[in-house]
Amino acid sequence: MLTDLDLDSLWEYRSAYSRPDDFDSFWESTLAEARSFDVKVEAVPFDTPLRTLDVYDVTFSGFGGDRVRAWLRTPRGSSGLPAVVQYHGYGSNRGSAVENLTWASAGFAHLQVEVRNQRGGTGFLTRGIADRDTYFYRRVFTDCVRAVDAMRSLGSPSVAVTGNSQGGGIALAVAGLVPDLAAVHAQAPFLCDIRRALNVCGRPPYTELVTYLAENRRSDIFPTLSYFDGVGFASTATAPAWFSIGLMDDIVPPSTVFGAYHAYAGPRQIEVWEHSAHEAGGSDDLDIALDAFRSRLLETP
Amino acid sequence: MLTDLDLDSLWEYRSAYSRPDDFDSFWESTLAEARSFDVKVEAVPFDTPLRTLDVYDVTFSGFGGDRVRAWLRTPRGSSGLPAVVQYHGYGSNRGSAVENLTWASAGFAHLQVEVRNQRGGTGFLTRGIADRDTYFYRRVFTDCVRAVDAMRSLGSPSVAVTGNSQGGGIALAVAGLVPDLAAVHAQAPFLCDIRRALNVCGRPPYTELVTYLAENRRSDIFPTLSYFDGVGFASTATAPAWFSIGLMDDIVPPSTVFGAYHAYAGPRQIEVWEHSAHEAGGSDDLDIALDAFRSRLLETP
Amino acid sequence: MLTDLDLDSLWEYRSAYSRPDDFDSFWESTLAEARSFDVKVEAVPFDTPLRTLDVYDVTFSGFGGDRVRAWLRTPRGSSGLPAVVQYHGYGSNRGSAVENLTWASAGFAHLQVEVRNQRGGTGFLTRGIADRDTYFYRRVFTDCVRAVDAMRSLGSPSVAVTGNSQGGGIALAVAGLVPDLAAVHAQAPFLCDIRRALNVCGRPPYTELVTYLAENRRSDIFPTLSYFDGVGFASTATAPAWFSIGLMDDIVPPSTVFGAYHAYAGPRQIEVWEHSAHEAGGSDDLDIALDAFRSRLLETP
Amino acid sequence: MLTDLDLDSLWEYRSAYSRPDDFDSFWESTLAEARSFDVKVEAVPFDTPLRTLDVYDVTFSGFGGDRVRAWLRTPRGSSGLPAVVQYHGYGSNRGSAVENLTWASAGFAHLQVEVRNQRGGTGFLTRGIADRDTYFYRRVFTDCVRAVDAMRSLGSPSVAVTGNSQGGGIALAVAGLVPDLAAVHAQAPFLCDIRRALNVCGRPPYTELVTYLAENRRSDIFPTLSYFDGVGFASTATAPAWFSIGLMDDIVPPSTVFGAYHAYAGPRQIEVWEHSAHEAGGSDDLDIALDAFRSRLLETP
Amino acid sequence: MLTDLDLDSLWEYRSAYSRPDDFDSFWESTLAEARSFDVKVEAVPFDTPLRTLDVYDVTFSGFGGDRVRAWLRTPRGSSGLPAVVQYHGYGSNRGSAVENLTWASAGFAHLQVEVRNQRGGTGFLTRGIADRDTYFYRRVFTDCVRAVDAMRSLGSPSVAVTGNSQGGGIALAVAGLVPDLAAVHAQAPFLCDIRRALNVCGRPPYTELVTYLAENRRSDIFPTLSYFDGVGFASTATAPAWFSIGLMDDIVPPSTVFGAYHAYAGPRQIEVWEHSAHEAGGSDDLDIALDAFRSRLLETP
Amino acid sequence: MLTDLDLDSLWEYRSAYSRPDDFDSFWESTLAEARSFDVKVEAVPFDTPLRTLDVYDVTFSGFGGDRVRAWLRTPRGSSGLPAVVQYHGYGSNRGSAVENLTWASAGFAHLQVEVRNQRGGTGFLTRGIADRDTYFYRRVFTDCVRAVDAMRSLGSPSVAVTGNSQGGGIALAVAGLVPDLAAVHAQAPFLCDIRRALNVCGRPPYTELVTYLAENRRSDIFPTLSYFDGVGFASTATAPAWFSIGLMDDIVPPSTVFGAYHAYAGPRQIEVWEHSAHEAGGSDDLDIALDAFRSRLLETP
Repeated sequence: MLTDLDLDSLWEYRSAYSRPDDFDSFWESTLAEARSFDVKVEAVPFDTPLRTLDVYDVTFSGFGGDRVRAWLRTPRGSSGLPAVVQYHGYGSNRGSAVENLTWASAGFAHLQVEVRNQRGGTGFLTRGIADRDTYFYRRVFTDCVRAVDAMRSLGSPSVAVTGNSQGGGIALAVAGLVPDLAAVHAQAPFLCDIRRALNVCGRPPYTELVTYLAENRRSDIFPTLSYFDGVGFASTATAPAWFSIGLMDDIVPPSTVFGAYHAYAGPRQIEVWEHSAHEAGGSDDLDIALDAFRSRLLETP
Repeated sequence: MLTDLDLDSLWEYRSAYSRPDDFDSFWESTLAEARSFDVKVEAVPFDTPLRTLDVYDVTFSGFGGDRVRAWLRTPRGSSGLPAVVQYHGYGSNRGSAVENLTWASAGFAHLQVEVRNQRGGTGFLTRGIADRDTYFYRRVFTDCVRAVDAMRSLGSPSVAVTGNSQGGGIALAVAGLVPDLAAVHAQAPFLCDIRRALNVCGRPPYTELVTYLAENRRSDIFPTLSYFDGVGFASTATAPAWFSIGLMDDIVPPSTVFGAYHAYAGPRQIEVWEHSAHEAGGSDDLDIALDAFRSRLLETP
Repeated sequence: MLTDLDLDSLWEYRSAYSRPDDFDSFWESTLAEARSFDVKVEAVPFDTPLRTLDVYDVTFSGFGGDRVRAWLRTPRGSSGLPAVVQYHGYGSNRGSAVENLTWASAGFAHLQVEVRNQRGGTGFLTRGIADRDTYFYRRVFTDCVRAVDAMRSLGSPSVAVTGNSQGGGIALAVAGLVPDLAAVHAQAPFLCDIRRALNVCGRPPYTELVTYLAENRRSDIFPTLSYFDGVGFASTATAPAWFSIGLMDDIVPPSTVFGAYHAYAGPRQIEVWEHSAHEAGGSDDLDIALDAFRSRLLETP
Repeated sequence: MLTDLDLDSLWEYRSAYSRPDDFDSFWESTLAEARSFDVKVEAVPFDTPLRTLDVYDVTFSGFGGDRVRAWLRTPRGSSGLPAVVQYHGYGSNRGSAVENLTWASAGFAHLQVEVRNQRGGTGFLTRGIADRDTYFYRRVFTDCVRAVDAMRSLGSPSVAVTGNSQGGGIALAVAGLVPDLAAVHAQAPFLCDIRRALNVCGRPPYTELVTYLAENRRSDIFPTLSYFDGVGFASTATAPAWFSIGLMDDIVPPSTVFGAYHAYAGPRQIEVWEHSAHEAGGSDDLDIALDAFRSRLLETP
Repeated sequence: MLTDLDLDSLWEYRSAYSRPDDFDSFWESTLAEARSFDVKVEAVPFDTPLRTLDVYDVTFSGFGGDRVRAWLRTPRGSSGLPAVVQYHGYGSNRGSAVENLTWASAGFAHLQVEVRNQRGGTGFLTRGIADRDTYFYRRVFTDCVRAVDAMRSLGSPSVAVTGNSQGGGIALAVAGLVPDLAAVHAQAPFLCDIRRALNVCGRPPYTELVTYLAENRRSDIFPTLSYFDGVGFASTATAPAWFSIGLMDDIVPPSTVFGAYHAYAGPRQIEVWEHSAHEAGGSDDLDIALDAFRSRLLETP
Repeated sequence: MLTDLDLDSLWEYRSAYSRPDDFDSFWESTLAEARSFDVKVEAVPFDTPLRTLDVYDVTFSGFGGDRVRAWLRTPRGSSGLPAVVQYHGYGSNRGSAVENLTWASAGFAHLQVEVRNQRGGTGFLTRGIADRDTYFYRRVFTDCVRAVDAMRSLGSPSVAVTGNSQGGGIALAVAGLVPDLAAVHAQAPFLCDIRRALNVCGRPPYTELVTYLAENRRSDIFPTLSYFDGVGFASTATAPAWFSIGLMDDIVPPSTVFGAYHAYAGPRQIEVWEHSAHEAGGSDDLDIALDAFRSRLLETP
């Protein structure tokens, strides 16, 4: 069953999110501070049974200069390729070295970034939420911007970003913070239009915020969240973007994705999967992203 | 709690279902093909402890000439009575020979038809769905039309059809395909206004279709389903019909029943049970059907 | 999945229930008091569309002389037939006048007794539980014994009792309290081996007792319950008994039925349905009961 | 997620409840009959380890002259204090003698009233519902009005009432039936706008009424309920009232509380907790009630 | 929490499954019949954006000569490589052409076989179950044996089989039916020790069989199932096998996997993941399989 | 239903937990480090409407010298009283200033300690779990030991500790770390016999650890946890202890509490509530604790 508005209403819906005046300056100073540390990419060849690809265990400097981990996969013996930077979903990590091989096999340098210590845990949505400066996602979004910097420092002539769920929300944030990306793909992006999401969604992880508010009734977390909402990032993004969403998604409400989509300032399209839940278009979305990124990154002169 | 629109809205609601141009010709040729086989009703007396009724183990030729099973119950020693043909719910069968005795005890020839091999199984909603010709319900609806033919061949001067849930959907289909029925009773009929049902209903069996679509995203099953939707059958039915529905039904959404009701071309009434779930009016609906069928079939000269 | 012990263990299992010394005297005085009121059976012909059966709206005097309701169904025009007295499940009532026709159609006088005001309600398991004299089931079991008295007063030469779930528990109680029944059928009988039931079962209605104990921790209800446990009644019953149970029953734990079965003092058998839940053998159990009751009540000289 | 209308709609919503013409006379005669019994308050000092408070085990005459139980707590050695009468939630009781000490510690005489035999049980919503005279809540509301009488008879110069959930519904009923209360606090009050509640709410205890209606389809309980609905009581209440509700309450739908709020005839305010479920404002509501009651009862000359 | 026996008990546990005398002859004749059709492998190059691998859309002749679909992936430009034949889980299909690239990237010819028409459906466990000859899995296991034949016909010098869940059950069946496999990997294999599985497991798909039995109480499906149980296949398998299982698996009970493991006739090991559910060791299992298959297939002279 | 072993088995059960050799030295150095900071208790009078009690907003130095918050409540105008230090449950905080008044009203200095930033959050069970030095509960247990130090520094002649769930686990930890406590009360204590808890319990918060292990299969967290298990603390505790547990507790498995109970080195008793879930004995446990603490702390010369 539909978990949110029907399709006609989604095309009409606009988010009530309001961007703080100092949104840009908050992020400018945040990124400037992070960039005061050398990104210092270390890519150590990682031994795998794969014969067609090279895999590197990568670290680079993120927020506060902390070292962030990632896998870099490239077609065997190649370098300087256009890059796809991928962000993962909530509670996960960069995954296995020998899985998720599509992007590299298709001719990209593929960086799979890891959110710090998130694997198997919960509670990240409220960590440090009392203040925008201490909020967990300030760290995460900054790390993920630095991942783009890292690929550029390795010589990638162009960079696209992609992600599913939390990874999609991160991709939108990076799209709003890094002005010259080649393309963006956000599948069922989390962390958009958050205030509405809490009213519509009854499942984790959004309920972490609901529980927090129910237990801390006098606490107002929306000022903090307003600096981390995908609708806010969308409004200054310029790279062409592909969104996707399932209308039966009970983890990321479709209206919140449309909230970000309608606010998106660059060229945009959205793939709607009427009977899908949080998996959205699954491998069909991957096909769309492959097609889009190839035409933008590989086939341009 | 209500599972769908409130009552005022249900009276206003009209289904968006659109009948294919060749709906009638599809069914005409389907039935013609089935009728090319002799219905060949075999009614073998079945030994039971019942003293007031005769029970027969019946088989007749349905779709493709395949033999379909049914129970026939009649008041002991009678023949040539008006008939009530009953269809059962999803995943069930014709039931026990010695239960469901009301219709025969009330003076009808009662044929309880069996859907082939459905007992205890699942997955029938998607079986053969790639094409209207192979779809499972093409077989079922045809068998069930032939059940009416069977009773006529046994000498019943008039025939009414009834069913609950899937059985109600079948009754509506038969009402649309057999022009001269005496009466129709459809309790919480399934398989009406299917496209909307998938948007509103989160429980089996409708979710079989949702799962199928979520897993086969590029597949469009609605063209097939458009030949099997109760709203389509309703629009050419002429027999007087009694519908019933519970407004707290979470298996058959009330709006989908109203979708068929409003489209029904013959005389119609609908009994609304405000606080009932899928049982709708239960035995109260049976009382209504008994009253209706007796006045139409037994008390007319 | 199995909800309790496996079959081998069930054959070994014996209930830890201990019968109070004054169990018999409690019930003797209870019944004597009830029988101090004339049973005064009133059987008012009830107008139905049925042509093969007569239906009567029956009342008779139960506990405290209160009038208890029942349906009596008989083959049209008959009288003085052997009787089947049936008790219904928890939260239900005597049902529709025109359903449940098997017993009468098979040649029995069929009395379907109603538990007072239980339809659609909850909370009966704890009503009056502070004292054995005020406990709700003292009333119910007494009413149900009087139902047998009622059929005898109407001339039935022999009486069998039957019931499913709560009705099965009542049937066992009646079997323990009325010495000369012809036969007993108890399908998935409730209210046996209650102390164990609370330890094994996590679903209503047994959880009514668990909730009560959790909320009234200092209250000891087991002394009261010991006068109402089917294991206690079983130990003095003499009529031949047919039990049935499903090993996947999550409402009446199989071990509690075996507890009563092993304690049953008369001839006994138990039908085990390995993959059934609370429906146990469904219509197959009815076939068994029909066969048993016919051979005991109808075919004996 | 929201369980009912959004906040804007709640401010617009008005209940469709319609007050019977003889609502007032029904309650006048009910209370007159109860008051024909002497309230006869007995307050027996209860031995506890508490050193700052006195606790009394109180009984007084309620409906039918039956004795109702309560705890009375007062600051050690005090008497004649303004009183706070508190009513408890569904299925509970007056609680432990040594808990719930806030009101007495704050300088009030605190009477915690007990609903008869409700602890750990269910099914009270339908008990006696066939007639307004026999309905369970006729007894309860009358007892609770008498609790105010009891405190006055003990010399309290002013009395406020408070309660959560069922207790909030009782507080509103008392506010409508006792004209000169000092203040009312109703946290997530149950039993308001009941007809709508059944359409919106899918969890106990409101579902007790839904189940009853689903099982007793021909029974109309709304005439009885119309004498017990908080919207009806609200319309003649005059004491200043503080309501509270959580917009994610799935036990008491927010719209039903707003239904009573908008109908409330005295000075009123409502505290809305956007992300709370049935706990509403929890201890924040207690702070509000403390503040309100102190200014009304303790600090007025 | 553990869903079955604890680890010590699992090491002791032995399945009560009993192999029919004509198990081998049933399968010999089944395979002989299938092999009477030419396997006729057609491998059509499939256009993808992948640059390091070739992908082929493969069909070959399975049971009854029906065409079975599969993806074949190989390192770009290679041929005649050792093969890994993979079988998928219940209700799925061969997946996307551009995902699941690990095996081919590691230097194998990787054939991902498709179970016919299973994607997005249910009910396969009971399809045709009335007879071993018509049972759905007779078709499936035969198709999957033919997949090995297909790879051999394409020149693979050695073949290993692997699968997860249903795919693991198929891998065991193939291991029992094809005598000279190089290696077998079965992750949380389904369809082993089925009779016990039904007693221990309360979730789909095993519950399809439970529901069938509960609805068809007189039907005995275990004779049919005895020809399709992984324990039966294990007892004649000779290839070295790697099993894995999670002790918190609620879809495939650990004891049923140990039942097959202990019966396995070839060299065997089992990886136990104490806190995993049905995902078992996930990518860690893949690492183990990669390691095992490389040493057996790629590194042998 | 029972959630774990039956009562007889619980009396026999002994935990398999094994205490690390350097358990004591780990905690000695941890506490020594914390005590290198002055405890520096600040108790600021907090304005409340309470007239019988004084309330103080307390802070003191915990682990790393960080300031820990607590409420201190005392009978108005008193000082130097024996103290009850209370620890709260998972995800909560010190609560409202004007609730939880029993201990102070009974004549104790009552310190309600707050676990840092836990209110409304999740994920604490795995925070920092990679190393015993960084584990979240190292901080928590140390803070809670310092709370006892704080009360002593305020002049309390004797100190007892109490808590429910997580609070009970903390109380046991403190009992193991502070040698001269007057008494301990642990209601349904969490964090005991953790390895078994994960095997038996399927609900949060223990499932946080299960999820972590399922996602980080190669990570061994039990060495870390072995320094924080209540069974380990119990074995060196000397103060008299009162345990309680409900046998239907599905959050803290009864066997894990018995694991700690049987290991407890001081005088001990355990109150078993057969039909209670995680609330255990509720206010009855409070009565027991009050009685125990009064006799030990208030009534001794």
